[in-house]
Amino acid sequence: MLEWSAVHRIIGAALAEDIGAIDLTSETVIPAEARATFVMRTRERIIVCGVPVAEAVFRTRAPACGFEAGAAEGSVAEPGTVLATVTGPARALLTAERTALNLLSHMSGIATLTRRYVDAIAGTKAVLVDTRKTTPGLRAIEKHATTVGGARSHRIDLAGGIMIKDNHISVSGSITAAVARAKAAAPLLTKIEVECDRLDQVAEAVAAGADVIMLDNMKPPMLAEAVAMVAGRVPLEASGGVNLDTIRAIAETGVDFISVGRITQGAPAVDIGLDATIEV
Amino acid sequence: MLEWSAVHRIIGAALAEDIGAIDLTSETVIPAEARATFVMRTRERIIVCGVPVAEAVFRTRAPACGFEAGAAEGSVAEPGTVLATVTGPARALLTAERTALNLLSHMSGIATLTRRYVDAIAGTKAVLVDTRKTTPGLRAIEKHATTVGGARSHRIDLAGGIMIKDNHISVSGSITAAVARAKAAAPLLTKIEVECDRLDQVAEAVAAGADVIMLDNMKPPMLAEAVAMVAGRVPLEASGGVNLDTIRAIAETGVDFISVGRITQGAPAVDIGLDATIEV
Amino acid sequence: MLEWSAVHRIIGAALAEDIGAIDLTSETVIPAEARATFVMRTRERIIVCGVPVAEAVFRTRAPACGFEAGAAEGSVAEPGTVLATVTGPARALLTAERTALNLLSHMSGIATLTRRYVDAIAGTKAVLVDTRKTTPGLRAIEKHATTVGGARSHRIDLAGGIMIKDNHISVSGSITAAVARAKAAAPLLTKIEVECDRLDQVAEAVAAGADVIMLDNMKPPMLAEAVAMVAGRVPLEASGGVNLDTIRAIAETGVDFISVGRITQGAPAVDIGLDATIEV
Amino acid sequence: MLEWSAVHRIIGAALAEDIGAIDLTSETVIPAEARATFVMRTRERIIVCGVPVAEAVFRTRAPACGFEAGAAEGSVAEPGTVLATVTGPARALLTAERTALNLLSHMSGIATLTRRYVDAIAGTKAVLVDTRKTTPGLRAIEKHATTVGGARSHRIDLAGGIMIKDNHISVSGSITAAVARAKAAAPLLTKIEVECDRLDQVAEAVAAGADVIMLDNMKPPMLAEAVAMVAGRVPLEASGGVNLDTIRAIAETGVDFISVGRITQGAPAVDIGLDATIEV
Amino acid sequence: MLEWSAVHRIIGAALAEDIGAIDLTSETVIPAEARATFVMRTRERIIVCGVPVAEAVFRTRAPACGFEAGAAEGSVAEPGTVLATVTGPARALLTAERTALNLLSHMSGIATLTRRYVDAIAGTKAVLVDTRKTTPGLRAIEKHATTVGGARSHRIDLAGGIMIKDNHISVSGSITAAVARAKAAAPLLTKIEVECDRLDQVAEAVAAGADVIMLDNMKPPMLAEAVAMVAGRVPLEASGGVNLDTIRAIAETGVDFISVGRITQGAPAVDIGLDATIEV
Amino acid sequence: MLEWSAVHRIIGAALAEDIGAIDLTSETVIPAEARATFVMRTRERIIVCGVPVAEAVFRTRAPACGFEAGAAEGSVAEPGTVLATVTGPARALLTAERTALNLLSHMSGIATLTRRYVDAIAGTKAVLVDTRKTTPGLRAIEKHATTVGGARSHRIDLAGGIMIKDNHISVSGSITAAVARAKAAAPLLTKIEVECDRLDQVAEAVAAGADVIMLDNMKPPMLAEAVAMVAGRVPLEASGGVNLDTIRAIAETGVDFISVGRITQGAPAVDIGLDATIEV
Repeated sequence: MLEWSAVHRIIGAALAEDIGAIDLTSETVIPAEARATFVMRTRERIIVCGVPVAEAVFRTRAPACGFEAGAAEGSVAEPGTVLATVTGPARALLTAERTALNLLSHMSGIATLTRRYVDAIAGTKAVLVDTRKTTPGLRAIEKHATTVGGARSHRIDLAGGIMIKDNHISVSGSITAAVARAKAAAPLLTKIEVECDRLDQVAEAVAAGADVIMLDNMKPPMLAEAVAMVAGRVPLEASGGVNLDTIRAIAETGVDFISVGRITQGAPAVDIGLDATIEV
Repeated sequence: MLEWSAVHRIIGAALAEDIGAIDLTSETVIPAEARATFVMRTRERIIVCGVPVAEAVFRTRAPACGFEAGAAEGSVAEPGTVLATVTGPARALLTAERTALNLLSHMSGIATLTRRYVDAIAGTKAVLVDTRKTTPGLRAIEKHATTVGGARSHRIDLAGGIMIKDNHISVSGSITAAVARAKAAAPLLTKIEVECDRLDQVAEAVAAGADVIMLDNMKPPMLAEAVAMVAGRVPLEASGGVNLDTIRAIAETGVDFISVGRITQGAPAVDIGLDATIEV
Repeated sequence: MLEWSAVHRIIGAALAEDIGAIDLTSETVIPAEARATFVMRTRERIIVCGVPVAEAVFRTRAPACGFEAGAAEGSVAEPGTVLATVTGPARALLTAERTALNLLSHMSGIATLTRRYVDAIAGTKAVLVDTRKTTPGLRAIEKHATTVGGARSHRIDLAGGIMIKDNHISVSGSITAAVARAKAAAPLLTKIEVECDRLDQVAEAVAAGADVIMLDNMKPPMLAEAVAMVAGRVPLEASGGVNLDTIRAIAETGVDFISVGRITQGAPAVDIGLDATIEV
Repeated sequence: MLEWSAVHRIIGAALAEDIGAIDLTSETVIPAEARATFVMRTRERIIVCGVPVAEAVFRTRAPACGFEAGAAEGSVAEPGTVLATVTGPARALLTAERTALNLLSHMSGIATLTRRYVDAIAGTKAVLVDTRKTTPGLRAIEKHATTVGGARSHRIDLAGGIMIKDNHISVSGSITAAVARAKAAAPLLTKIEVECDRLDQVAEAVAAGADVIMLDNMKPPMLAEAVAMVAGRVPLEASGGVNLDTIRAIAETGVDFISVGRITQGAPAVDIGLDATIEV
Repeated sequence: MLEWSAVHRIIGAALAEDIGAIDLTSETVIPAEARATFVMRTRERIIVCGVPVAEAVFRTRAPACGFEAGAAEGSVAEPGTVLATVTGPARALLTAERTALNLLSHMSGIATLTRRYVDAIAGTKAVLVDTRKTTPGLRAIEKHATTVGGARSHRIDLAGGIMIKDNHISVSGSITAAVARAKAAAPLLTKIEVECDRLDQVAEAVAAGADVIMLDNMKPPMLAEAVAMVAGRVPLEASGGVNLDTIRAIAETGVDFISVGRITQGAPAVDIGLDATIEV
Repeated sequence: MLEWSAVHRIIGAALAEDIGAIDLTSETVIPAEARATFVMRTRERIIVCGVPVAEAVFRTRAPACGFEAGAAEGSVAEPGTVLATVTGPARALLTAERTALNLLSHMSGIATLTRRYVDAIAGTKAVLVDTRKTTPGLRAIEKHATTVGGARSHRIDLAGGIMIKDNHISVSGSITAAVARAKAAAPLLTKIEVECDRLDQVAEAVAAGADVIMLDNMKPPMLAEAVAMVAGRVPLEASGGVNLDTIRAIAETGVDFISVGRITQGAPAVDIGLDATIEV
């Protein structure tokens, strides 16, 4: 689920801001003819994500560089595993090094954390979904990373679905009225979701014909009550206050989806080392 | 220290990816003539940073909106403080809401964490500096946030200084040779820094005429030894393994600068709430 | 349903290609200080669409021009109705004239034709929907025009829904398998539609859990049979071979949606005249 | 007469708007390793135009795809003729399919209609020319298509010639004055054309030194009179009210050029089918 | 003759490359609230050109700055004349200062030199024309400056006319054949010029129907011979080896146009001083 | 010292403005299948600079063209030396010809003039440095050319160093105060230079801790006095009124650097010829 035109925009912006006018150190200290070999190894147990993106970073500066991936997207890599080996002109590879490493560590960090949440609800019917709480400018690669980690996407952008929240409800007069407005104007293949805090809202949303219902910040007992009440007529998404300590209990209430902002907002970059050999 | 052409690029990219083809919810559920008032309040104690950036986000979609800042950049805001009040066309403001809030929370998060590090070394001669370990695409606003928090910038990009590391040294033959290469070709107003792991390297870097010396991953006793040895001839920067627990001891060794990647890489977004009122 | 960032891209590209290096005629023959008044009147009965877009074209070249709209978006304008009056610097307005007029005539043409289709199925439960068969580069304004004409959008782009067609079915093995693949990976708020030529396929699609079913190129009797068979469990969309002669009968079969490519692909531009007065 | 930098801009814009965030159907239902073969055949008799453009569309998404053209630009293709065969990664080709087909059908439609006009005036001295009445954003490929169809270009853009019309005449005081202004300031290699409704204007334009005279909306008898009057001193262009029924009579008056907006504005897309085979 | 979209591109590129990541001096040394007044005065006698462009540079960084032009485009300014006074935020104006001054000095330099050539041929029928020998990236403003100086443009770009040179002639077989090819395919409003070194070529070009003939590197006696031979049937352009010492004699041969690359390639920037007052 | 992303931007802008809508001459007169061979030879003694840039220009239009460099960057080429031989499709190469030649002549002109200045101070300790007085839009390639000629860069852009001038001093109150402001906020690897007209200012700048001192418009005796006074504590840069007649005496005063705007602002393009052979 990776749109490459977006990836190239991200890489272009990242390299431009990191290089500025020119990479002075490489240009002044590294001979033009020097060759480099980079070996990237993970220093911790990770879900691998972003190796093709790292390759694209290097190729942006050194189109003909050698690049050998050492691990498949989505695979588990133990500490010490070689993720990729790159060979090519030293100046170009050094200029690209940090951007490549940053993106790889960032994406693998998200995939790795996502997998922990996925594992935590294994065996339940709940599916983990991501949110729009992504780093500004990096959504395409972060949404890819959650997918690699095992989550599904909630909606990619504001065109990817209709979310009716309290403001929409109050300006429309009721859930029923807000859903009716949305149904009258939404593209045919777009679903309408209603965010509910209370069970009476859930009942109204079901009656109004919502395609999905978000149960916002409800505790497991109330979630279970909602599941019982809706009885499978509309898919239910639990949202709010979800972390690795709480997610299992939430999943066991029988909700269909659990959305977690933390898998993109709070994922620490994983520790990936880069050993460089440079020869003239 | 905020270059607005970079800010506008960041905002443009962030809005484009978040909106996609169109904000379906606003367009279908919110009447075209509805007006919104947004009040943004911090929910925790923060160093305020990014209010003008948030304003620029809203103005990108609603050029004539009302915007009143409630707190100055760099000031301390207690929980409940209003950071900004925005009024204007509801559709446009709702579309911009999350991007504005994300950037404000992100920037204030960095400024707030930076201030903690700055406070931790108060009274010593050490100055906190940031690094190039910033989120790809967001460097301009993240470097601004560290400045607002009280740090200085190390170098903005690869054109902003020369950093000689182990690879440069090995390919040049010695620190002396690498520095000579850099001095022969560097722009006149660019400084040259040498990264050293050992005291004999420090001595060589001083002799070679380095403008700054980075003491990489040295413990306080060794840092103190380096400080004594260099005796003020060249500014010294401590780097590596710096956190809020270790930074005071490092500062007390007498180094001139301490660089910390964590203030940009690890800063959690602060919690800022947005209350919206929408009227037709 | 008009995303203005897309509109501005369209206008920028259109003006750039029409002007080239410079508008030689205006620059050489029209005095710099000359003022123009343009009155745009429809010469036929139309559904008005695109007046704000025309205004944006003029403002791109003459930001401070006077612009008074004479008819509301979506209203019916009889021949002779003034759609807009523009006043400003003659050179700038003359340079923008054809692009403004072209876009206005094109958009009103689509809205007017769409309304005829909408009127043709008045009183039935069927809703008219547009398609992705739009002019390359102009989708944002063409989809807006169908909406103004009274249609709903099918999906805005390839991210706006999942359409399973014969190729997807054959590569997956069956409708059931293809829908299962899509359901496992689709974003939560995205609907899945299956294109069916035969009634047994319709039955399989219903069982597989399709959110919408497209009845492709079926005649009214077969459509009616599908409607009876599905019995409201899944919304049905009739598609293929729809024109103003056939649409009523199709609507009367009880289908929920009818999609028509002709409202964007075949809509003739309406005839709008522009009277210019230029004074020095 | 095809400027490829313009073609690539058109393709980029068209694909971006059609794909949006990502092609969800291909990504979720088609296996990453699936291969596709597309065969594009015309279903009607056409003048082939745009095959290299279609190739460029596919190559934008699948740079290494196989592409074999089945018919030369400008050739006549009978129904059933294969225009091109494409092989490559299924996801990428499916994503590009509609844009490629749209552009090919659109360009061939224009070339085919243009050729009918050219054939209609065969044997006369008149030359068919196109106009600036092209689809906003698509001028480069539409002007190419008229050329492939056998027309010449009138002017490519507003920098490609000077057209003096009624407004220019009235603001200048006379045709003589307007032409004098233009001559004093026009680039050396730019021609000046004057649009005339009456024969006395034609006489004045000849005397003023116009390089070309447009005879606007004149009937054949008046055109013939103008031809006789001008007697070859200045090339004459007939314009307005030209269609396939009227063009022969116009050509037989002896005018040098006949311009027709319909070949770009009114050309229906030709019917080209695409058979896809997808294999895993 | 100034296309502002091109001017804004030039300004954007110039500022971006001059500023880089940020204007460190202004940001660190000038208080944010400081105000500046700039007075720009010419230090030599010039033809004024580029004042509105300088204004646009300042407005790019300081949209609301005060700007008062002191001299009209194309006017003669004696040493000491104030060309413009600018007031506004000091940081923004200082950042823009050099780019504004550079463009103003450059454009006035071209206009001033052009005027000297124009004056040198005063009283003859010859008209001065510029060439495509402009600084890469700056053509729009350099062509404007030659116009302000009193020259006409030869052709703005490769779409602005057809120039048949020796290579075109040899590949076509003859001047006659090359002109025939061009006439068959050129847009209707485009002139065709033939470059000739010898009088027999001139005769052939006249016969072939060239719209303009360039007499390349001919000395005045041969130019006079060509003028006599052509006798007004086709406009003649003298080109090559033209400088302020030779141009009068060339003009007196009776040629219609004289093109000079030196007015753009060799024009020294004029000396314009900027006095700044900064107050907090 | 050449950042290729900047080079590609320069080439793209230059080709776009030179071509306009399309290269009409090549398209109408040169057969599509014609092949060209271009041989570029210098007609004067030059320092070669820009051959890889010229190659990139040709490759932008003809990616697979043959290109053989005949002289190395920075080498001396005597009149008649072949700089490059290019072979490929005639239309594409002809379209690119002037842009390639312009950039090559311009860059070699700067490198050649720079070398003359470098040679003029041979044997002294002074190093030649360039300035920001470059052609708007062309800085990246002009700074490269000065480097190839043997100069060093002063600062690449406004982010590349801090320059404290009279305005900064007056607004700060003193040199001491201005330097203190800069030191408190400058990035760690950025040097601070102070521009001085008088010796007492030099003394203050040394005391304030300036990293470099610019001696502005001082005559050699005063320069020598400054050198003696500073005694090597801070590097000194002479600036202003430097030309080939004055530079030797300036260098012999013992200054460390001499900056010269003329090497970029006043460098005449060198004369490089292009012989083309075109075959069908």
